Amino acid sequence: MNTRIVLVETSHPGNIGAVARAIKNMGLTDLTLVRPALFPHADATARASGADDVLARARVVDSLDAALADCTLAYAASARQRTIRWPELAPREAAADVAQHAGRAAIVFGPETSGLTNEHIARCQRLVFIPSAPDFPSLNLAMAVQVVAYELRLASLDTAPPADPEAPLATQEELENFYGHLERVLLESEFLDPDNPRHLMQRLRRLFARALPDQNDVNILRGVLSALWDERRR
Amino acid sequence: MNTRIVLVETSHPGNIGAVARAIKNMGLTDLTLVRPALFPHADATARASGADDVLARARVVDSLDAALADCTLAYAASARQRTIRWPELAPREAAADVAQHAGRAAIVFGPETSGLTNEHIARCQRLVFIPSAPDFPSLNLAMAVQVVAYELRLASLDTAPPADPEAPLATQEELENFYGHLERVLLESEFLDPDNPRHLMQRLRRLFARALPDQNDVNILRGVLSALWDERRR
Repeated sequence: MNTRIVLVETSHPGNIGAVARAIKNMGLTDLTLVRPALFPHADATARASGADDVLARARVVDSLDAALADCTLAYAASARQRTIRWPELAPREAAADVAQHAGRAAIVFGPETSGLTNEHIARCQRLVFIPSAPDFPSLNLAMAVQVVAYELRLASLDTAPPADPEAPLATQEELENFYGHLERVLLESEFLDPDNPRHLMQRLRRLFARALPDQNDVNILRGVLSALWDERRR
Repeated sequence: MNTRIVLVETSHPGNIGAVARAIKNMGLTDLTLVRPALFPHADATARASGADDVLARARVVDSLDAALADCTLAYAASARQRTIRWPELAPREAAADVAQHAGRAAIVFGPETSGLTNEHIARCQRLVFIPSAPDFPSLNLAMAVQVVAYELRLASLDTAPPADPEAPLATQEELENFYGHLERVLLESEFLDPDNPRHLMQRLRRLFARALPDQNDVNILRGVLSALWDERRR
């Protein structure tokens, strides 16, 4: 298991270095950076303290979609409880889930001050929430990564490698293509009103996120869309 | 449960600030500093990021004995596996142990580069070891505190308050007085040769550390020493 750690729009390069060290301490090496403010940077190298190889191999991309394209499971790390129905796990449960996952998993961490936006979270299937003190809940970014990476390590030491699933899970790229297809059909059919979208796409994303579709499922869903709309319109 | 976090001879004040934030995030507030290189310091305040109250209340002392004087259980955080028979627990086990402990517990963290010395460790009853990657085992000080504090928080959320023991456990101060008494008797009786001590005191300390003596036990042990040696010499 080499779970990908994704940092979105990190402001302070020192935090990127501290994350590199923290994940290498826990046996992880896959670091992906979405639009970091400053990278590479001397502060990152200094705080990495010997995890230079993780920094050197870090991939810099310009969107969360690109960071997750080949992933089949993505967790959004979020400090905030959300009222909406979105699977939210503690780090220990999330780590057990990832360790049993037959595919590439990622954990996504947001910018230091603002955290992940709803749009970022909509790209993920589940939330992971660190149970911090209610009166002082906000962990430093690298500390949050450390806690999650620690649980990932314990879970990987505890868990036998997962069995191959019946069909490979859909990658994020396949899912995004499906969502794109779905949105187009809903717009063309005027079920989705762009002037009054009522969170429709977000709700549909959450529904499918909970289901973790495999590639067969996605092919079937896209077949349904084609049969119901594209073929009819031809 | 408000477990004490003790930092011994910390070099970088920024780490002290990061520790203050990390422990407050996990609901802990008792920070004790043994001979910090620089404290108070602007770097500590900056990295504390709102945990200024923890820094303001931090106690600065000039020995580990002073830091632990009123404690009844102390864990030494150590990255190194030791061959010697010394109870060594993972953070999760240590946290469960601390949560069930009826008395004041402390976790002791050493200097950034060198870690705790054997002399420091001899002041503690148990070791806590973070299971990091063997090829890159050394966590940043504040990260190590974060992991242990996280486990302490989870354990405290999980555990009912401990029952009162038959007699209060011996404090570190009472134990140190006993060890002092024991060493004097062993020297006077020439069982302990100061020119060839053969780790005798260390071995005896470990033996009693494993037993976690209560105040009755210590009184009895000191009574035995007096009866066997001091009374006879009068």
